[in-house]
Amino acid sequence: MWKFKTPGIPDDEFERAEKVPITKEEVRVIQISKARLKPGQIVYDIGCGSGSISIEAALQIESSGKVLAIDYDETAIELTKRNIEKFGLTNISVIHGNAKEKILELEEADTIFIGGTGGDTKEIVELCENKLKTNGRIVIGIILIETLYSVLQVLEKLQFESVDITQVTISKSRKTTTGTMMLARNPVTIISATRI
Amino acid sequence: MWKFKTPGIPDDEFERAEKVPITKEEVRVIQISKARLKPGQIVYDIGCGSGSISIEAALQIESSGKVLAIDYDETAIELTKRNIEKFGLTNISVIHGNAKEKILELEEADTIFIGGTGGDTKEIVELCENKLKTNGRIVIGIILIETLYSVLQVLEKLQFESVDITQVTISKSRKTTTGTMMLARNPVTIISATRI
Repeated sequence: MWKFKTPGIPDDEFERAEKVPITKEEVRVIQISKARLKPGQIVYDIGCGSGSISIEAALQIESSGKVLAIDYDETAIELTKRNIEKFGLTNISVIHGNAKEKILELEEADTIFIGGTGGDTKEIVELCENKLKTNGRIVIGIILIETLYSVLQVLEKLQFESVDITQVTISKSRKTTTGTMMLARNPVTIISATRI
Repeated sequence: MWKFKTPGIPDDEFERAEKVPITKEEVRVIQISKARLKPGQIVYDIGCGSGSISIEAALQIESSGKVLAIDYDETAIELTKRNIEKFGLTNISVIHGNAKEKILELEEADTIFIGGTGGDTKEIVELCENKLKTNGRIVIGIILIETLYSVLQVLEKLQFESVDITQVTISKSRKTTTGTMMLARNPVTIISATRI
């Protein structure tokens, strides 16, 4: 359970599994904010990993909304289910499979999150164009340079406006025997845009 | 008006004035998340500047809560008032004066935001220790190295736990005639902690 209204659940509140990525707290909070959520919305979380984005989105859209969390990795799906149970949520449906096929079957979305890895991001963005409602938001977390380039290229050709590109670099403190040092994390680029 | 539930109002939605700082969207969103807000809370925004943190906090704590926005700069106070009006909020009280004096008169807080400048931050943190309720949150945005050092020193001596130090560096894209470049902003360090 998360008893606050604001997003930003600490990473260690989530169940974790080896090799399943998590969108870390600060980057997650920015992604959730770029989505501009409100109660009742339909949200896809494509490449849900640990489910942290699904959980935070589900809390924002409340029980009148629905999150559809998709991953091709069975361990990620099981982990997302464990986190859904941990946070006591009933408005997330978990879908195991290839997003490029599964998306076609889904109802239209108000918001689509796309996870930051996988070589298919460009194709998934193209498919999402047809599944997003007018004024719907797409939020893409990107780690790879190749993905960043291909998503930028494809967004220009699709029906999106207000494209925002934000690179986020977070450092966190660690106590050493002699003082406090900052440990850098890798930069993440968040692209968000509005469906025309 | 902001019609979404999530924080993250774009910077250009706020009224601005020359020389009055604004906590920019992405850093603001992380600060709001670190505060862990919920409806009904009492929040101080010390050094409110443009009022962007006050506005976002007021939306999260709803009409049952109250934000007390303090600044010594009259232009900042007037600007905060204009933004309160623009966003149609009625749960923010604006206080013009020196925070070190004004804080003493205020009711106890659930959350205290402290702005990122001014050489008085250490003394204000000390005063805030006595105004924060048990389990209340303090969130300090820091730009200066000297402030970072002095706040870290003082927090160790006061009744705070779960001290988190997060440095945030944001870059935003700009279109040039030949492509898309990233423009770096200055790093901001956000210290947050819980009152024991």
